[in-house]
Amino acid sequence: MSILCVGSVALDSVETPFAKADRVVGGSAVYFSAAATLFTPVQVVGVVGEDYPLEQLEFLRTRGADLSGIEQRSGESFFWAGRYHFDLNTRDTLETKLGVFADFEPKIPDAFRGARYVFLGNIDPALQHDVLDQVESPEVVACDTMNYWIDSSRAALLDLLGRVRVLIVNDEEVRQLAGEANLLKAARWVQKKGPEIVVVKKGEHGAILFADDWLFFVPGFPLEEVFDPTGAGDSFAGGFVGYLASVGSMEPGDLRRAMVYGSVMGSYAVERFSVDRLIDLPFGDIEVRMAQFRDITAFETHVGAGRNV
Amino acid sequence: MSILCVGSVALDSVETPFAKADRVVGGSAVYFSAAATLFTPVQVVGVVGEDYPLEQLEFLRTRGADLSGIEQRSGESFFWAGRYHFDLNTRDTLETKLGVFADFEPKIPDAFRGARYVFLGNIDPALQHDVLDQVESPEVVACDTMNYWIDSSRAALLDLLGRVRVLIVNDEEVRQLAGEANLLKAARWVQKKGPEIVVVKKGEHGAILFADDWLFFVPGFPLEEVFDPTGAGDSFAGGFVGYLASVGSMEPGDLRRAMVYGSVMGSYAVERFSVDRLIDLPFGDIEVRMAQFRDITAFETHVGAGRNV
Repeated sequence: MSILCVGSVALDSVETPFAKADRVVGGSAVYFSAAATLFTPVQVVGVVGEDYPLEQLEFLRTRGADLSGIEQRSGESFFWAGRYHFDLNTRDTLETKLGVFADFEPKIPDAFRGARYVFLGNIDPALQHDVLDQVESPEVVACDTMNYWIDSSRAALLDLLGRVRVLIVNDEEVRQLAGEANLLKAARWVQKKGPEIVVVKKGEHGAILFADDWLFFVPGFPLEEVFDPTGAGDSFAGGFVGYLASVGSMEPGDLRRAMVYGSVMGSYAVERFSVDRLIDLPFGDIEVRMAQFRDITAFETHVGAGRNV
Repeated sequence: MSILCVGSVALDSVETPFAKADRVVGGSAVYFSAAATLFTPVQVVGVVGEDYPLEQLEFLRTRGADLSGIEQRSGESFFWAGRYHFDLNTRDTLETKLGVFADFEPKIPDAFRGARYVFLGNIDPALQHDVLDQVESPEVVACDTMNYWIDSSRAALLDLLGRVRVLIVNDEEVRQLAGEANLLKAARWVQKKGPEIVVVKKGEHGAILFADDWLFFVPGFPLEEVFDPTGAGDSFAGGFVGYLASVGSMEPGDLRRAMVYGSVMGSYAVERFSVDRLIDLPFGDIEVRMAQFRDITAFETHVGAGRNV
């Protein structure tokens, strides 16, 4: 099944301790789609300015993305500039210019309104509501958010959770949202507000999926070289939701595989600037890393070990 | 096979956001043995003062520990007092009194000198060398250390690595030791100094084992209530080395299981103050949690997923 994805379509300038990229394509909708289109078609809704190099998103179209929901308006595209610290785990935002994104009002094209799978990237919860109001009968709504909205739009966000089946956030965000330091309790708190599935991303430490009465843990893939962490979370979401939509299932076995595909996509995304690593990524490479994930986590229990003292 | 364990035998006063414990038994040798004796006999070497409630270590003896290497001297026992912050991930040391531990010179009883498995708890690397000098032909030496020794006794520590088969440290320590932020590179650096196995503990984020050309990841067990994190690392080491000694093997499958047993023991240790949770822990509970670890990490790969674009 295809996925309707609404989020930012941005230009990023990124500095790492090793290199620098200037005004490269990014944003939650772009990273999400770059990962998800490896699994299933994606319908993208967003807004860009006149300065946006739309031709650089052509690779998405060639693998099944419908970009007709990306509106181009007069003005500048959403721009973010940031600098990563030496360990790549923390970063400073150097500049944010909302540009045409400041007045973004998602208009879902008629052809997209029947979407069964919806991914709401990190935008104003009021706009996330607007999107859902325009979709006829979504089956699986997955949603991201950030500390800024948790602070400033808490009521709208809590209300949104009642319309969402999968919340995908990072560990700090879920703790802030629930007002609870313990991740397990924080996830349970969120589940009471609506989402049956809570996925908590922990950066290099991996991610945890909390379902009703079970949970699943996937590590971060141990890489010798993390080149640029930008977009890892949205690429994770793209692999996760992309796989689920491709199989059209929310069964436990599929949710588990989806977590690993998410971590695979996040791990590839950080190997280059922008979506560069995902553009020509053969599906075989995804399967190779999937097998590596299995290799670094699998063990056989050995009944009868230890001493029965 | 039994394990020779040399480390601190201490009294701890611990404050958490929830409760307080005063002068309870602790120290690396105590936590290690409390976990390891669930798998195999342990020979303990350490020093305590006149004030030490040795009767509280009787439970170790009943499950096969030989405590004849614990010397009782006139003076006070090693004492540590600490307070954990709200999230339990960070703590302040309120007081450290070395007492008789300041002059600790490990004397390995004749009966222990044939030990094949040796665990060197976090003590002065010079003393760790002394221990190894007194052991005839150890097959597996596992060793812990800390930032203090990495700073102050670097030469002795690097020299020690050449005599060690398994280094068990936390993520900050291995980064500091190798002068390298990337964990994978840091572990490879350590391996060049001697240890074929590097185990990196990451607290609630789990632990990674680095072998020659493979690695293995175990998550931290997601607990609703972490009561007192003190001793989690040494309990992990006790489960890890304890299991390996019990099977007398360093085969990959055993190393993987050892990692999970380590994480199981660490997860139980933090459920109560001191070693309280480990005293009467039935082995059946260990197997139950082992199965839970399998449940939260296992997935089936699904060849043929995705789109071959």
